[in-house]
Amino acid sequence: MGIISGLNKEFESRVRLGMMSVLMVNDWMDFTEMKNLLQVTDGNLSSHATALEKNGYIEVKKEFVGKRPRTSYKITDSGKKAFQEHLAFLEKMMRQ
Amino acid sequence: MGIISGLNKEFESRVRLGMMSVLMVNDWMDFTEMKNLLQVTDGNLSSHATALEKNGYIEVKKEFVGKRPRTSYKITDSGKKAFQEHLAFLEKMMRQ
Repeated sequence: MGIISGLNKEFESRVRLGMMSVLMVNDWMDFTEMKNLLQVTDGNLSSHATALEKNGYIEVKKEFVGKRPRTSYKITDSGKKAFQEHLAFLEKMMRQ
Repeated sequence: MGIISGLNKEFESRVRLGMMSVLMVNDWMDFTEMKNLLQVTDGNLSSHATALEKNGYIEVKKEFVGKRPRTSYKITDSGKKAFQEHLAFLEKMMRQ
C-alpha cells in the first residue's frame, strides 16, 4: 500500500473538497448558496453533487418553493465519516 | 472569489499531493523510490512529474549510473512555496 492509499479518490477535486467542507458545518444548503460560495458553474456543481450522491456521501433533495424548483444538499453520516478519514490521512501524510 | 479559490488546481491529484509531500522532506528522490512509496505505475508517475516540472514545482534530473538511466526529482523553491500555500489554504478551509 502506497503512502497515498488513505486519500479518498472521490475527494480529489477542489469542488468536492469545498462542498464537503461546507456541508460538514452546515445543515441543508441549497444549490444557489453553494454555487455562490464555491463560484462554480451550474453544470460543474451538479455533476460533482451527483457523484457525491452516488457514493452515498451527500443527500440531494429536490422540492418546489412556490413555483420554483429548489435543490438542496446535506452531508450523510457515511459522508462525514469518509471525509473525516480523508482529512485525517491528509494531515498524517503532510506531517511525515 | 469562491472559498476554494486558494486551492491550487495543480495539486488536486493524490499522486501529486504524495509527490510534493515526499519532496518537501527529502532532497533528490529517484523514480523507483518514489514509485514504490506511492505505488503507482511508471506512466502515471511520469506524467504527473512532467506536469509538476512544467509548472516549475519540481526539478527533474536524468543521468546514467553505470549503464542504467536514472531519473530523480527535487522540489524547487517555487514548488515549496506553492505547496505550502495550498496546504495553508486547505487547513483554513477545513477549519471554517
